[in-house]
Amino acid sequence: MALAQRLSRLGTETAFAVALAAADWKSKGNEVYPFHLGDINIPTAAHIIEAMNAAIQDGKTGYCPGAGIPELRAALARDIGSRRDMTFDPAQVVVTTGGKPVITKFLQAVMDPGKGVLYPNPGFPIYESQIEYFGGNAQAYRYVPTDNGFAIDLDHLRAQITDDTVAIIYNDLQNPISAESTPAEQEAIAQIALEHDLWVLSDEAYFEMRYEGSSRSIATLPGMAERTTILYTFSKKFAMTGSRLGCAVAPPEIAKVLSTMNTNDESCTTHYVQWAGITALEGTQQPVADMLETLRERRDIACELVNATPGLRVDVPRSTFYIFPDATEAVQRVGARDVSHFAEMALHETGVSFCTRRHFGRPQPGEDREYIRLAYSGINADDITEGLTTFQSWVASA
Amino acid sequence: MALAQRLSRLGTETAFAVALAAADWKSKGNEVYPFHLGDINIPTAAHIIEAMNAAIQDGKTGYCPGAGIPELRAALARDIGSRRDMTFDPAQVVVTTGGKPVITKFLQAVMDPGKGVLYPNPGFPIYESQIEYFGGNAQAYRYVPTDNGFAIDLDHLRAQITDDTVAIIYNDLQNPISAESTPAEQEAIAQIALEHDLWVLSDEAYFEMRYEGSSRSIATLPGMAERTTILYTFSKKFAMTGSRLGCAVAPPEIAKVLSTMNTNDESCTTHYVQWAGITALEGTQQPVADMLETLRERRDIACELVNATPGLRVDVPRSTFYIFPDATEAVQRVGARDVSHFAEMALHETGVSFCTRRHFGRPQPGEDREYIRLAYSGINADDITEGLTTFQSWVASA
Repeated sequence: MALAQRLSRLGTETAFAVALAAADWKSKGNEVYPFHLGDINIPTAAHIIEAMNAAIQDGKTGYCPGAGIPELRAALARDIGSRRDMTFDPAQVVVTTGGKPVITKFLQAVMDPGKGVLYPNPGFPIYESQIEYFGGNAQAYRYVPTDNGFAIDLDHLRAQITDDTVAIIYNDLQNPISAESTPAEQEAIAQIALEHDLWVLSDEAYFEMRYEGSSRSIATLPGMAERTTILYTFSKKFAMTGSRLGCAVAPPEIAKVLSTMNTNDESCTTHYVQWAGITALEGTQQPVADMLETLRERRDIACELVNATPGLRVDVPRSTFYIFPDATEAVQRVGARDVSHFAEMALHETGVSFCTRRHFGRPQPGEDREYIRLAYSGINADDITEGLTTFQSWVASA
Repeated sequence: MALAQRLSRLGTETAFAVALAAADWKSKGNEVYPFHLGDINIPTAAHIIEAMNAAIQDGKTGYCPGAGIPELRAALARDIGSRRDMTFDPAQVVVTTGGKPVITKFLQAVMDPGKGVLYPNPGFPIYESQIEYFGGNAQAYRYVPTDNGFAIDLDHLRAQITDDTVAIIYNDLQNPISAESTPAEQEAIAQIALEHDLWVLSDEAYFEMRYEGSSRSIATLPGMAERTTILYTFSKKFAMTGSRLGCAVAPPEIAKVLSTMNTNDESCTTHYVQWAGITALEGTQQPVADMLETLRERRDIACELVNATPGLRVDVPRSTFYIFPDATEAVQRVGARDVSHFAEMALHETGVSFCTRRHFGRPQPGEDREYIRLAYSGINADDITEGLTTFQSWVASA
């Protein structure tokens, strides 16, 4: 009995190994500062939980439609549409168990084996894993440092495109690097999608996780709505990562297929959690504002301490809850073999636990700088200060 | 922009079309008796919901491991093991969003394109859909009526096996026909799996949904544990269909792969629902006993009225919550073109809504009897009586 060959192409989130190493170190009695996981240590708002319980009391404990309950699909069409100045038919909304399922289901819907899909690298590692798992050609595009963050290397991106390229994954307000497109950059991506007749997966997980400025969906640009599937999630905005609630907003022919996939894969998303989702969208938004204020404070502390650390440098991002400092000099300074060794040393010397660039897709030829990723969503301001001050002293004293 | 070719091989649960037709008929002011869906109109027990809320209050609203929280995996290993006289390592347990995901993930793990998988037909329609979706050869095996229910046609099953057959899906206590293997039949299936070196998916969704006798897992037979993946679900036993909680209990190499698939597909199963699952397993089992008593009463009423209807005949099943009457003569009696037309006529003449054999896999050559499936899990005893009495009168008066 053999296992299927496709499994040799299945990747994973290697960041979980960082979590294991951190847990192991903590279990030995050491202090650990968890900057490694993009989880949120803020409770889901009480009125959302109350709505869930009201739904349970109302008997919403049975199966529901694979595409989601009509009431939530309508609420999502309204909310996602109004925040983007777009109009969606509820039939375009397919509820999913978090945002992540949209990645695999979108790829299954549009990508035949042997076809190419452009994806950001560094980027969310499941893009690369799922493109390759389903037999596609993972065509990495990259970012370059600018005076104020990062920009997509558009010339390099264009050079990756082949006749077989069928889609592009675009993650504005990006994990892990918090890159944010200028209007011109977003328009260039749209132009490329139009020229090459590409499907677009617009991962908008962090669309409303911003501290200044405003977000714009690539789906709003001319000719893009009919080729773009938006990935939406309740995870970040409503501190509902563990609830597993999200959706795709897709062209009707894609939405239809995603709904059938749901019926095949998991029947439906947890019924009463969907009712909670309606309240999250339509109830008070004060907890969202409060959470963003908390996160902004954490961001400012983290960025200040990182930039005060010799050999580390980061621009202050306007969105997401990640910072992605260039650590090239710090890696050398402490005598680490490479950035992975640097992370291991940092954990053992200071308790500061973080991911590196290597957890976010296969490194590409020509990369000559080393980066680390610090998530500040799961750690309080005091611990950020304590951990990064210790970290700063360690690097400075090397 | 084209859609992927694999979509042409994706099936679905056509039973949802029956639900839509029923809802449409009801919306026009007609009485509908819902025998079509295997859902449960009994609330999830209060102590399970309380455990979920306690977990939420305790902050279990963030991400958790892709394979499930260790505490639930351990509880499942204990409970599923002890009820089968087996010993499982918690590492063999992978928590899933209901039992259904185990079907697609198992097939992805063991079946390469072009390989064959034996599956029951009539059977749960997702087996056939997912085998074909992932490029496999769906090798249907069939059931034959006996003096007391149905038996697997073992000679026919053996004749379906090719050199490419890699797995068999076995659903003792079967949906839709409520077939139950004799010990000898189960041993014959195990022998075939051993002889042909097959992986086994043992769908045990109804293992504890029985009214007399006792269940035995095929995994307990010699040589079977190392080749068998058990599909387990909280859906039926604990009236938790809408909660989406289940698991695979699998050989370690399969469990590892299923866990990685979870990380790729949906990150994890809803966190606080997993804590509720521990309480479901370890708390009072009185609600389970009460539910089974309610279902037994419904079964007896339904079987009696069906057998009192001219042209319908069914043996009283000892398990599941389905009956699968032979309706060949009743179809002819009312002048229906075929069993689908019979179901449509029944809905419009009597409000009784049910699925037919055709919703459970592609009909096979040589089938000369017509069957319908009535689920009695989602309809109260009084409505069963009222609906099936009306139905009986309609058929009798034809």
